[in-house]
Amino acid sequence: MSAEVVPLPARAPSLGPILSLTQTSMNAVNQIILDRMQSEIPLIPALAGHLIAGGGKRMRPMLTLAGAAVCGYQGTRHHRLAAAVEFIHTSTLLHDDVVDGSETRRGQSTANIVFGNPAAVLVGDFLFARAFELMVEDGSLRVLKILSSASAIIAQGEVDQLVAQRRIETSEDRYLHIIGSKTAALFAAASRIAAVVAETGDAEEQALDDYGRNLGIAFQLVDDAIDYDSTAAEMGKDKGDDFREGKMTLPVILAYARGSDEERQFWRDAIAGFRTEDEDLAHAVTLIRRHDAIDATRERARHFAERACDALSIFPESKARAAMIDAARFAVSRGY
Amino acid sequence: MSAEVVPLPARAPSLGPILSLTQTSMNAVNQIILDRMQSEIPLIPALAGHLIAGGGKRMRPMLTLAGAAVCGYQGTRHHRLAAAVEFIHTSTLLHDDVVDGSETRRGQSTANIVFGNPAAVLVGDFLFARAFELMVEDGSLRVLKILSSASAIIAQGEVDQLVAQRRIETSEDRYLHIIGSKTAALFAAASRIAAVVAETGDAEEQALDDYGRNLGIAFQLVDDAIDYDSTAAEMGKDKGDDFREGKMTLPVILAYARGSDEERQFWRDAIAGFRTEDEDLAHAVTLIRRHDAIDATRERARHFAERACDALSIFPESKARAAMIDAARFAVSRGY
Repeated sequence: MSAEVVPLPARAPSLGPILSLTQTSMNAVNQIILDRMQSEIPLIPALAGHLIAGGGKRMRPMLTLAGAAVCGYQGTRHHRLAAAVEFIHTSTLLHDDVVDGSETRRGQSTANIVFGNPAAVLVGDFLFARAFELMVEDGSLRVLKILSSASAIIAQGEVDQLVAQRRIETSEDRYLHIIGSKTAALFAAASRIAAVVAETGDAEEQALDDYGRNLGIAFQLVDDAIDYDSTAAEMGKDKGDDFREGKMTLPVILAYARGSDEERQFWRDAIAGFRTEDEDLAHAVTLIRRHDAIDATRERARHFAERACDALSIFPESKARAAMIDAARFAVSRGY
Repeated sequence: MSAEVVPLPARAPSLGPILSLTQTSMNAVNQIILDRMQSEIPLIPALAGHLIAGGGKRMRPMLTLAGAAVCGYQGTRHHRLAAAVEFIHTSTLLHDDVVDGSETRRGQSTANIVFGNPAAVLVGDFLFARAFELMVEDGSLRVLKILSSASAIIAQGEVDQLVAQRRIETSEDRYLHIIGSKTAALFAAASRIAAVVAETGDAEEQALDDYGRNLGIAFQLVDDAIDYDSTAAEMGKDKGDDFREGKMTLPVILAYARGSDEERQFWRDAIAGFRTEDEDLAHAVTLIRRHDAIDATRERARHFAERACDALSIFPESKARAAMIDAARFAVSRGY
């Protein structure tokens, strides 16, 4: 018998630490969400509940809660604000699904399919207004400024994405600008407001903003990779939706950039909407693999996730900081 | 020759006085509206401009401006807030037209027809967020509270109207509750915030709120009457839209309540969506006339308009007060 050196296995990144860090607060947030989606019109909680109770990950409010923890904040103001963040997010999801005509989300029928487009639009409006009511109750003009500005930027990003749709010439930079608005702006704002509530100062505010923004970009990149990654674990969203909708995402942008003339012709036709069959999607996946566009997209995502982690270096070492770093690394490991 | 007593003709109510009262301020508001609907995404000002520049009456911001005048306010804060009010209104119009599938408004094609439903939904979201940005720049939490709460109530009213659609059993009280939310809440808030800015006190705030709310109800009642009044002057909105969409408005509620069994059967079929031809609309108009439902609706409107006028009695006599009274009486004289 000989003594063998057994190396410790590299620990896989996990959501575990951030989930336990925020669990108690998240229960309070969930209670506020349930309370404040009520209305004298029963259709409103029915529709909102369909989406809100339907297995959302509460990622954005979790950023507010974790951000407060990393700032050492001891109060409860952030609970209400985290609920406001989730309402803004839910409102944009409802409208997105109407805009895209999506039929499933998180593995179940979308609200627009179950309740119709009109109700989905209007309940989205209601939740958005409710979010501002919650912020007004908190009373911080600074938080109101951050979240109203983020909301305008999100809407601009959504319109920008609509304009870029079916346009094969969309560049990687333009795409990063779009997801910086439509996805990362709310991640950044959700994180930033934690520092406002904790009254830590500008540097900490900026650090949390940077963390959230980079994480948001990383998160969206991975989402977009997964939509073309047939080996990925089943996800709630319909596989191939981006392809059929002619959405320009990084896997397509890279496969097009790296492709032959013939391949580029395929992409032009597909993004323009002339190739939407299952076999076309299969061919798209083949081309994306041929040029390692999934790996490249994931690599880009890792870059932003690492920037997110490094942004936190301004904060002293803590369980909260470690949990946020782990969460960022987990985000880019999804779907493997 | 004999001396005849020629009575002065009763002066018809007119929008003239309120238009001249607010003209200078309205130019400032229009400038803010034009400035703040800009965006790096050209589709946003193009779509917003289609509706905003498309001949809107600016009624709601006018209430803020007139309210400020009746309070003797001398500053300029209300300009930005009046623009915010118009943005909220425009946002709801964009979403309403998507929800109703409307094809024309103010005599031209709706934004959803010209630019598509997705863009109309998203630009509506953008304008709504922009409205809150404007309010945050002003910095009054009280104004933010009034307008965020009004926005939530408007959305609830819209959902409530959606639920009542095609339901013949909708009562007059339910209908008044719906229009009190979907229309009058913004009229009330637009007026009320003038007193907040002018720092006049609670009684004046309440008086302006009452004025706006009653005027809003009166205004909606007259709109609903005009939709069935074939003698009314041409208006931008498509005639008979309410009928074809199965919307329960007061002319229908009254004609149904006052109708024979046979007439009620017609209304049940029509509101359920089984009678949408031009001849059905003509028959509906006949029944509504037979039971004086247009006159009765207009009479109800006059009642609310008079309540609006009387609410202003708390303010000293002034040109501004007279102009607001004239405007309320003009609102219920429209379409004759």
